[in-house]
Amino acid sequence: MQPFDTVIRNARVVTAADTFTSDIGIRDGRIAALALDLPPGLEEIDAAGRHVTPGGIDSHVHLDQPTGDGSVMADDFFSGTLSAACGGTTTVIPFACQQKGETLRAAVDDYHRRAGDKPVIDYAFHLIVTDPTPEVLREELPALIAEGYTSFKIYMTYDALKLGDREILETLSVARREGAMVMLHAENSDCIAWLTERLLAAGLSAPRYHASSRPMLVEREATHRAIALAELVDVPILIVHVSGREAVEQIRWAQSHGLKVYAETCPQYLFLTADSLGCDDSFEGAKCICSPPPRDAANQQVIWDGLENGSFEIFSSDHAPFRYGGPDGKRAHGEDASFDKIANGIPGVETRMALLWSEGVRTGRITPQSFVALTSTNAAKMYGLYPRKGSIAIGADADLVIWDEGRSVSISNEMLHHNVDYTPYAGMQLSAWPAMTLSRGDVVWDGEPRGEAGRGRFLPCERPAPAQARRRKTELPL
Amino acid sequence: MQPFDTVIRNARVVTAADTFTSDIGIRDGRIAALALDLPPGLEEIDAAGRHVTPGGIDSHVHLDQPTGDGSVMADDFFSGTLSAACGGTTTVIPFACQQKGETLRAAVDDYHRRAGDKPVIDYAFHLIVTDPTPEVLREELPALIAEGYTSFKIYMTYDALKLGDREILETLSVARREGAMVMLHAENSDCIAWLTERLLAAGLSAPRYHASSRPMLVEREATHRAIALAELVDVPILIVHVSGREAVEQIRWAQSHGLKVYAETCPQYLFLTADSLGCDDSFEGAKCICSPPPRDAANQQVIWDGLENGSFEIFSSDHAPFRYGGPDGKRAHGEDASFDKIANGIPGVETRMALLWSEGVRTGRITPQSFVALTSTNAAKMYGLYPRKGSIAIGADADLVIWDEGRSVSISNEMLHHNVDYTPYAGMQLSAWPAMTLSRGDVVWDGEPRGEAGRGRFLPCERPAPAQARRRKTELPL
Amino acid sequence: MQPFDTVIRNARVVTAADTFTSDIGIRDGRIAALALDLPPGLEEIDAAGRHVTPGGIDSHVHLDQPTGDGSVMADDFFSGTLSAACGGTTTVIPFACQQKGETLRAAVDDYHRRAGDKPVIDYAFHLIVTDPTPEVLREELPALIAEGYTSFKIYMTYDALKLGDREILETLSVARREGAMVMLHAENSDCIAWLTERLLAAGLSAPRYHASSRPMLVEREATHRAIALAELVDVPILIVHVSGREAVEQIRWAQSHGLKVYAETCPQYLFLTADSLGCDDSFEGAKCICSPPPRDAANQQVIWDGLENGSFEIFSSDHAPFRYGGPDGKRAHGEDASFDKIANGIPGVETRMALLWSEGVRTGRITPQSFVALTSTNAAKMYGLYPRKGSIAIGADADLVIWDEGRSVSISNEMLHHNVDYTPYAGMQLSAWPAMTLSRGDVVWDGEPRGEAGRGRFLPCERPAPAQARRRKTELPL
Amino acid sequence: MQPFDTVIRNARVVTAADTFTSDIGIRDGRIAALALDLPPGLEEIDAAGRHVTPGGIDSHVHLDQPTGDGSVMADDFFSGTLSAACGGTTTVIPFACQQKGETLRAAVDDYHRRAGDKPVIDYAFHLIVTDPTPEVLREELPALIAEGYTSFKIYMTYDALKLGDREILETLSVARREGAMVMLHAENSDCIAWLTERLLAAGLSAPRYHASSRPMLVEREATHRAIALAELVDVPILIVHVSGREAVEQIRWAQSHGLKVYAETCPQYLFLTADSLGCDDSFEGAKCICSPPPRDAANQQVIWDGLENGSFEIFSSDHAPFRYGGPDGKRAHGEDASFDKIANGIPGVETRMALLWSEGVRTGRITPQSFVALTSTNAAKMYGLYPRKGSIAIGADADLVIWDEGRSVSISNEMLHHNVDYTPYAGMQLSAWPAMTLSRGDVVWDGEPRGEAGRGRFLPCERPAPAQARRRKTELPL
Repeated sequence: MQPFDTVIRNARVVTAADTFTSDIGIRDGRIAALALDLPPGLEEIDAAGRHVTPGGIDSHVHLDQPTGDGSVMADDFFSGTLSAACGGTTTVIPFACQQKGETLRAAVDDYHRRAGDKPVIDYAFHLIVTDPTPEVLREELPALIAEGYTSFKIYMTYDALKLGDREILETLSVARREGAMVMLHAENSDCIAWLTERLLAAGLSAPRYHASSRPMLVEREATHRAIALAELVDVPILIVHVSGREAVEQIRWAQSHGLKVYAETCPQYLFLTADSLGCDDSFEGAKCICSPPPRDAANQQVIWDGLENGSFEIFSSDHAPFRYGGPDGKRAHGEDASFDKIANGIPGVETRMALLWSEGVRTGRITPQSFVALTSTNAAKMYGLYPRKGSIAIGADADLVIWDEGRSVSISNEMLHHNVDYTPYAGMQLSAWPAMTLSRGDVVWDGEPRGEAGRGRFLPCERPAPAQARRRKTELPL
Repeated sequence: MQPFDTVIRNARVVTAADTFTSDIGIRDGRIAALALDLPPGLEEIDAAGRHVTPGGIDSHVHLDQPTGDGSVMADDFFSGTLSAACGGTTTVIPFACQQKGETLRAAVDDYHRRAGDKPVIDYAFHLIVTDPTPEVLREELPALIAEGYTSFKIYMTYDALKLGDREILETLSVARREGAMVMLHAENSDCIAWLTERLLAAGLSAPRYHASSRPMLVEREATHRAIALAELVDVPILIVHVSGREAVEQIRWAQSHGLKVYAETCPQYLFLTADSLGCDDSFEGAKCICSPPPRDAANQQVIWDGLENGSFEIFSSDHAPFRYGGPDGKRAHGEDASFDKIANGIPGVETRMALLWSEGVRTGRITPQSFVALTSTNAAKMYGLYPRKGSIAIGADADLVIWDEGRSVSISNEMLHHNVDYTPYAGMQLSAWPAMTLSRGDVVWDGEPRGEAGRGRFLPCERPAPAQARRRKTELPL
Repeated sequence: MQPFDTVIRNARVVTAADTFTSDIGIRDGRIAALALDLPPGLEEIDAAGRHVTPGGIDSHVHLDQPTGDGSVMADDFFSGTLSAACGGTTTVIPFACQQKGETLRAAVDDYHRRAGDKPVIDYAFHLIVTDPTPEVLREELPALIAEGYTSFKIYMTYDALKLGDREILETLSVARREGAMVMLHAENSDCIAWLTERLLAAGLSAPRYHASSRPMLVEREATHRAIALAELVDVPILIVHVSGREAVEQIRWAQSHGLKVYAETCPQYLFLTADSLGCDDSFEGAKCICSPPPRDAANQQVIWDGLENGSFEIFSSDHAPFRYGGPDGKRAHGEDASFDKIANGIPGVETRMALLWSEGVRTGRITPQSFVALTSTNAAKMYGLYPRKGSIAIGADADLVIWDEGRSVSISNEMLHHNVDYTPYAGMQLSAWPAMTLSRGDVVWDGEPRGEAGRGRFLPCERPAPAQARRRKTELPL
Repeated sequence: MQPFDTVIRNARVVTAADTFTSDIGIRDGRIAALALDLPPGLEEIDAAGRHVTPGGIDSHVHLDQPTGDGSVMADDFFSGTLSAACGGTTTVIPFACQQKGETLRAAVDDYHRRAGDKPVIDYAFHLIVTDPTPEVLREELPALIAEGYTSFKIYMTYDALKLGDREILETLSVARREGAMVMLHAENSDCIAWLTERLLAAGLSAPRYHASSRPMLVEREATHRAIALAELVDVPILIVHVSGREAVEQIRWAQSHGLKVYAETCPQYLFLTADSLGCDDSFEGAKCICSPPPRDAANQQVIWDGLENGSFEIFSSDHAPFRYGGPDGKRAHGEDASFDKIANGIPGVETRMALLWSEGVRTGRITPQSFVALTSTNAAKMYGLYPRKGSIAIGADADLVIWDEGRSVSISNEMLHHNVDYTPYAGMQLSAWPAMTLSRGDVVWDGEPRGEAGRGRFLPCERPAPAQARRRKTELPL
């Protein structure tokens, strides 16, 4: 038998279920063997005493996505994937977003062009359905699902993106028939518009009022509605970026009643609060404008509880990169812009893994195995990348993170590799950071970025195997 | 002191709080004295051993309301109020319904014309806001509220009636500012349309599929949304015709969290089930088509529990009268009409009081006092008719029911006085029926209808005193 | 017709349902007539512009009750009832407490001796069952119920008082069979003992640790258990002195599921917090030691919400009077006594009515009618004193309060008439106080105490009519 | 490198997280390598196309446990472990039960004697603490925990076993301090006794009334109480054999609030109902007497939902073997024995794995990975056997099941290897059964039992690593 390309020695291997000590033999970019005392590889990496986890899958990132409002995303497929790799993420799934009046196919084609030869790590695409015409629903969407675009996102807010209830029902029906996974951004659009108008009329336009314009109930309502619509169509859904108690209560209600309602949360809901948007009217708060907005300490605790008790499947970054300085990011409409005109999103693709390992695993809040499930395995399964991605198992891609633990890392933007000029987490002290990231067996980070543009491959996705058998819960005789 | 016009002797007086034995002295149409051994009146009525309750206020009835779909309501202001009086109801509040593209004022004027000199008993108007233009919200609605039209209804379903979330928010804002009471018909329109289309496409068009097209979750979703919208605006609302568990759970959640969310239910949710719409495809089921549809025995029990534990404020009929035979009622689109084309509504203004007294009070499920609260007092308070209406108290209108109890009454349509050719409750055995109804001291029912057209008066309504101080529950800094 | 003994003119009469303006004619101590322009009475009282409510029923007071632990209650049947009358309360229901090893009859006889000729206002007795021997359950308790002692209290804590689950079941069974009302003090005894031992071992013995020894979960657990036991026996119960959210959630769960679970709360849970027991180790905190302990501001809000949304039936004082100074009250075991040795209870019989009228009604949190229900009518019904007590209705005892509103009253102990040397509410500013209290037509307070010892009468109680029909909720085939 | 003792070829390996195809190399009874194309082993097993899962850990079985009531358990450590092995279970954890008045040590010593040289597979012991004297709590229990008996069970019912609340608190405190895992049998003893007495007095003594004597509320109450006690002590607990909705709701409430409350269920709550105890008074129902009793179809669905949504950690058998015929099993007190005298328990150690694989995995209700978590991995972690047991990972014991799927298996008692003369699942059609079981690399079942008495080894348990960091949830300042 030919030698392994690489052998990682004495790794403290972590999967979503297990922790054990083993060498990892890599051949042709895949995990070929798990055993102790493997024969020498062409390359040898010593991981003695170190946790080795599957590379992260960041299933909610925005890269080089047209915004249509004058701002420009700071990260393209090069800087975004490079940054991801340096933070321990080996797969990203950004969004090919349909423009209203255009086809989904056009969005996909355009997005492949944008990816071009830039990606450093592997990537798949979610679709965003913004214009579910009969043609789109009958032909395009099924065809694209069959081609490997098996998940799509529906927005319940933002004028350029949102669908009405009837459109959601029709689109969910396609997901049910074709076996696709649907992500929902759940905030009530009309409530936000009404509040925004009132806030602006009252002269409350500073960045911090972004949080006031999207209170918890706006998210709770849309979450309840999304669940009801999915219950009617009888299809699994995933609620993205859940921010606090009232939404979690809706989701757990659904799960208690046997509905296949999954949920995602993000670092901003564990580590930021509405105060991060500022306690005065300074523009500085623009740095932390994202939707839903971060809440408060009590809601942070609810999110931690949800990570511990299984309410959440996925921990993603919702990386949406806009520069704070310069003319095309947060300031695209000037520093006097009202909060509703400021580009919405925060960077986080590089910090996600270390934040959760340091503050979740090392504090004992969650197990290493839960970390793996939340950052990698569950996303792979949910979006049809499993078993190629998401685990340390025979045959899986050798996407791995070797952890450096126990030292203090003070987060600064200088240490990051995205193209954004700030990080919301600046100054946080972490106790862990990736020592090395491997993508299909290649070292792409070892303290220095090592991945080259273009080495990342596009990943067509399988239809996600539904986690469980579908049972019709509604009263419909259909 | 001049003699009483009428003295009712030895009545077992029931109010929403109390039961006591007293004579009732009536002068000038009002209750002038409560005492035993009152001096002789010009008229004497012996009520020894009989419960005497306030006359019913049926705050949810449809009379001579244009439907716009080819059907015609069977009851106008004469037959409807006559029927009400014979069933123990002394005040009705039907709906002046704005037509889209027209003014509220036009609806009110038209509705006064329709009332004309027909009413047998007193009446007020709710408005239905279907087209909340800036003009309507800024001028018409406040003016009408000031004139005594202090409650209005918002529909979340029916194309000709429904408002979107933003319109609801704007309309609720007016209610908050002006102190009006808002009633909400809570069913998700898009869900119903989507289901209806699917049912019809599957050939499931018989009357009984009306129930299939509006499952409980459709009501639960809209109820949750209505609560969220009212919470945002910080205004009390009343959810009308609540049909079962999932909606009740939403309402009790709101009440538990200090929100002023009130609720109404109707006889059809206690005494009918979806099976009342037929177990086969017969057109007979059309008789029980109403929305939300009746559910099942378990949901009936939840409604009873809600009456007992204070979840509901109001028990109304939602009388919506359409003839089963003839060309302009249930059959307006022929006997082959699909369920969605059949006029929506059932009669009930005359049976409401006796059904609840017999099956609620006499079975021990609710107290006589709760009966009074649910059928009269609470509605008077909620809609600004109190203290003129809704109680047996000094100064109140002498609107009274003297009960005949302990005998068996088999409901048949022949005994009723509406202009509908059936009752959904035919064949039910009751143990009570009104022996006598007085409206402002006049006997309008004593086994025979005695009220004359035109004796009923229009009642301008006060702004309902909010039951409790408003507390802002939301996070909005406004 | 003979003249009225007293006529109260132009009262703003409030019942648990209604508010109306009327004269009140009193004859032979009873309300004989309600009307305007009543003929002159022997006495005339002008109440123009003043609210007149039923006299309060304080259904949870402790007077001259043996404590068995060295402390002595400061109020006997004279000072306690005098104080009650001056605060607008016209009926008290203290507790005849069985001593373990003795009979219930002995407790009743002893308690009648203690009452003797002291009471200023009318009174009934609850029993406390502490030793439910077969003899007690089979003979004594049914006999006493038949004699007019139709309610009894069960303690789930305190070694000298508490019953085990099996004893509770047996005692509840008697209540079911005989139609008595059961009050439950719900705190888990073992949890309190375990915590107390740990606190004392840690040297945390100051008064404020009383609150630490009885956290919310201790009350939540016992409340859930009490509900389960009553559900099994299928009998209504009333949970006394509910202090906060977790207990309220249990009670509302039960009410939602159709169980007849009623609840009481007290001023201390609206106006005091755990901080009232001190922020340091000073003995001053002993003044506010009561059980359950007051909680925090969030729990106060939950109690207010519960008063507004109908979770509570009764608002009582739980008056348990011990002097702060002197050797036999709070200091019976010295000022160094650990918290568990300090007499448990606070005074409140005189302040209860004004606190709720001022802070509940006048702030708009609850209606005047709700005030009447909570302070008087519901207790009368729950404990079999209705319709003699609890309302302003023909035939009812003329127990009345005429309110003086709109002026500022600063609570001080000097203005009170109990025999306790402090009030926990000292310094609170109220906007209302009783101007006059009438007991069976006699003025017992008009700014000065007017009631004489011995004028109060013992009230045998009827079996409370169960509010609703009993439905068996459990699976038991019995 | 020396050859593998055994190589399993082309297995469809399933762990609690992953599924992948690999050879499994076994050396010295442990899993030494995972890779494809491993070099030849001394033994070769072809598993192509077959799922291979970790051997089951049945963490709730009763073997040769003294009952003290005249009945005798049918299975000792030989027949019990043989039966387990034939059903795919490779580790059992029966109970060393303290006798009141005796030491825990005596129970452990006695139980080791009973195990003797009989076990076919590996085994650990849970303790049952029935007499937590100060000596036991201070010395014995900590010492035994240190020796590898790191989990113990507390009963809240059964006179010979149950602890009171205070004893539970003291015992939980030891668990907290020593890091042990506590299992709780949650049923309210007094309620059961009270109901039983009433049922027997009413002549309702047939086996089926066993279910009537332990209704759902009895379990709900004790579950709530157990949660409250654990919350107070701030220690994780595991509620065993959860049977239906009301208990699940309590558990999910606790999990939602961040409490470490784990739960177990068993096949009888998925596949039996109260009707399994008979629809008439036949003694046949004795076969299905177990506690809590099976409920109904709706509760079965709730248990399935709980397996799907993560409410449960563990799926065990609660194997408690008594013969139906013969004088010392179910008939120990004769066929006329009232239900409370009939030995309590049903067999199930051999059917557990196949029931869940067939009806859970193959129907699509749960994933293969969930099956592994529920039947093996979670128990290993919860009880300190991980990573030696519970997974297919490098270094783990080679405890494996190779599945035979897709054929129809009709369960009959004849095919089973326990020493009981019936199975409650007789006649069920399954679609899977273990083809082969390996224990530490030895084939112990391949269609015939192959394991020899005495080859099983006692497993001292580690202190279970708490799944998450402990956070104090209570208000206690300790």
